[in-house]
Amino acid sequence: MVLRLIISILLVSTTVTFAQAPPPGQPAPSNAPNAQYPRINPDNTVTFRIRADDAMSVRITTLGPYDLVKGEDGFWTVTTKPLAPGFYYYAVNVDGFTTTDPGSQAFFGYNRYGSAVEVPGSESDFFAPKDVPHGSVRQVWYFSKSTGAGGAWRRVFVYTPPGYEANGNTRYPVLYLQHGAGENETSWMNQGHANFILDNAIAVGKIKPMIIVNENGLPPPGEFGRGAAPAAGRGRGGALIGNRFAEFEAVVSNDLVPFIDRTFRTIPSRDQRALAGLSMGGAQTMRIGLDHTELFGSLGLFSPAIGNLDPAADYDGKLADAAAINKSVTLLWIGIGREDSLYAGVKASHENLEKAGIRHVWWETDGAHVWTVWRKYLLDFGSQLFR
Amino acid sequence: MVLRLIISILLVSTTVTFAQAPPPGQPAPSNAPNAQYPRINPDNTVTFRIRADDAMSVRITTLGPYDLVKGEDGFWTVTTKPLAPGFYYYAVNVDGFTTTDPGSQAFFGYNRYGSAVEVPGSESDFFAPKDVPHGSVRQVWYFSKSTGAGGAWRRVFVYTPPGYEANGNTRYPVLYLQHGAGENETSWMNQGHANFILDNAIAVGKIKPMIIVNENGLPPPGEFGRGAAPAAGRGRGGALIGNRFAEFEAVVSNDLVPFIDRTFRTIPSRDQRALAGLSMGGAQTMRIGLDHTELFGSLGLFSPAIGNLDPAADYDGKLADAAAINKSVTLLWIGIGREDSLYAGVKASHENLEKAGIRHVWWETDGAHVWTVWRKYLLDFGSQLFR
Repeated sequence: MVLRLIISILLVSTTVTFAQAPPPGQPAPSNAPNAQYPRINPDNTVTFRIRADDAMSVRITTLGPYDLVKGEDGFWTVTTKPLAPGFYYYAVNVDGFTTTDPGSQAFFGYNRYGSAVEVPGSESDFFAPKDVPHGSVRQVWYFSKSTGAGGAWRRVFVYTPPGYEANGNTRYPVLYLQHGAGENETSWMNQGHANFILDNAIAVGKIKPMIIVNENGLPPPGEFGRGAAPAAGRGRGGALIGNRFAEFEAVVSNDLVPFIDRTFRTIPSRDQRALAGLSMGGAQTMRIGLDHTELFGSLGLFSPAIGNLDPAADYDGKLADAAAINKSVTLLWIGIGREDSLYAGVKASHENLEKAGIRHVWWETDGAHVWTVWRKYLLDFGSQLFR
Repeated sequence: MVLRLIISILLVSTTVTFAQAPPPGQPAPSNAPNAQYPRINPDNTVTFRIRADDAMSVRITTLGPYDLVKGEDGFWTVTTKPLAPGFYYYAVNVDGFTTTDPGSQAFFGYNRYGSAVEVPGSESDFFAPKDVPHGSVRQVWYFSKSTGAGGAWRRVFVYTPPGYEANGNTRYPVLYLQHGAGENETSWMNQGHANFILDNAIAVGKIKPMIIVNENGLPPPGEFGRGAAPAAGRGRGGALIGNRFAEFEAVVSNDLVPFIDRTFRTIPSRDQRALAGLSMGGAQTMRIGLDHTELFGSLGLFSPAIGNLDPAADYDGKLADAAAINKSVTLLWIGIGREDSLYAGVKASHENLEKAGIRHVWWETDGAHVWTVWRKYLLDFGSQLFR
């Protein structure tokens, strides 16, 4: 056999070798392919293990912080306290350099590609890839005239439900679903597993088959702080108080919705079109949804950045007439966790809406300002949509 | 206005602030959103800039190496020599910790998520996102009975050409296009920009509209080295000499091709179906293509890991009858760069094929074993397909 496959030049593996049996536990489902660490132990502690031969200090931040200790084999390790099942962003800091863990997949959050560890549990079942029919997740490009001065091509992620490709005639309702500040159009699929949530819920009839669209809702610099430039060093998203999200609103209403309706087999009516988002995306949903009741019949606010809402005065008085709003908004869904730093403000908004007689679903749950709760909110909100 | 948008908790930006005017040059197109570094200077040098307050040494590796120098502002910087336009993987090493640059997008290569810098030039035009109709890139899940012991769900990336969504009846030929060792099903789109190459070439009639499918061709451990386990510490891909890629061949022929044909609007015939790949993917293409001439009419070998081919003896004698092969393989395309470490072996394979009278296209180019050449190979191979 003279055939020679000389491709070892491309083969550099970060896989860790074990002299004997592998340690207990399992690699996190959020790991890069073949990476053994971070590792979930049977007691739900997480062990991190990183090679940094000459470092003086290695620390896990964002999660923790946890200081790693150098072993005789040159690897730095630490084991956390037991963690509740859920999704945790983290960073690695080596001698003052804040970066990613090569063992983790890359997730866009905090305005950068970063690491995360998924601690699985019984509550992970609803977003796990299972033996059910799967939809597909498209990256789609469209030209948006409303972006910037001369327009621009933009990328959206589009989930189509199982059977969409093969069923040439069926039309579907559409949920426009937005990320939080510092994240982007990839986040609901990569961090949120929105596609698997839908696949599993559709398989048991809990959610109706629908299309999901994720755009990049990060406001451009001119939109920050009522038109002022962002504070130095804060990037796109520095000062959002009172923001109208004007450019994104124009993108959604003028460009995105018409593009989706002419490209996919949608049911192009307000009753079959919803808008939802988390955190900043929740604030955008309320602003854009109230401005465009002709487009969106249902609104979902997941841990929304909307505190101490005054229905009489805010949103240019669009909430002042409760009877009109109750007629034009079929479903207004608001969810927040009690450990969320936004909890008090959002709860006050809920109470003010209630006093004003504005009908809405109020979902107060355990949990903080994290993906672990937003996945559950999608499941509940989604199950109430388009009924 | 009592509306309060208290979302600064989610806002951590890595954007660098400049006291006055920004430095010359431009952020690399491969950067993470808003990241100012790495920066391409007018003379095609690249400046890296990284914050690592307490580090003793910071070095760029894979590319270079280049040692960074700490400035008074606490940032470490270095400027490279001028680089030819192209795509360069790199890593950052801080005090012995090899990791990514937060300024770069994350690319799966070398069996890990890593950094890369794209140096643009006049030759970048054919894969740049331009003002032409765009196709879409799907993530699709299908159940493969031929994977492992009991089968498994697998993810593929599928490019559909512009107009696919709206044109309900048109059917298209299919190119199955494979990555190299250490990469995966994401690489042809993320690193290779195969979708933009097709969009641009289809727009000017250089390539016929077609579907592209990218699978994960990394062989499982049992498939290495004629059935032996991989060498310790080398991971999936450690010892490929003489490998039959048996499991992947079964996945492609039994599961993937039938799934694609029943899910997408394909033209399900060998004349309208091609298989191609780079490096390891080129070796897989030759093996699987010769075993399944009933499925694939055209084969593309991009810098293939096939050295000193003996047509009389290799591939179980499937190349021994030149007349039969010339009849069953419509297009056999082989490309390699003169700076590629595989060059001598692949050139010998070409010469041996020529001596044996086996018809093929031979494309000898500048360049090494890098994405910069594989994008060009896709453009040329693609333009000859399905004519």
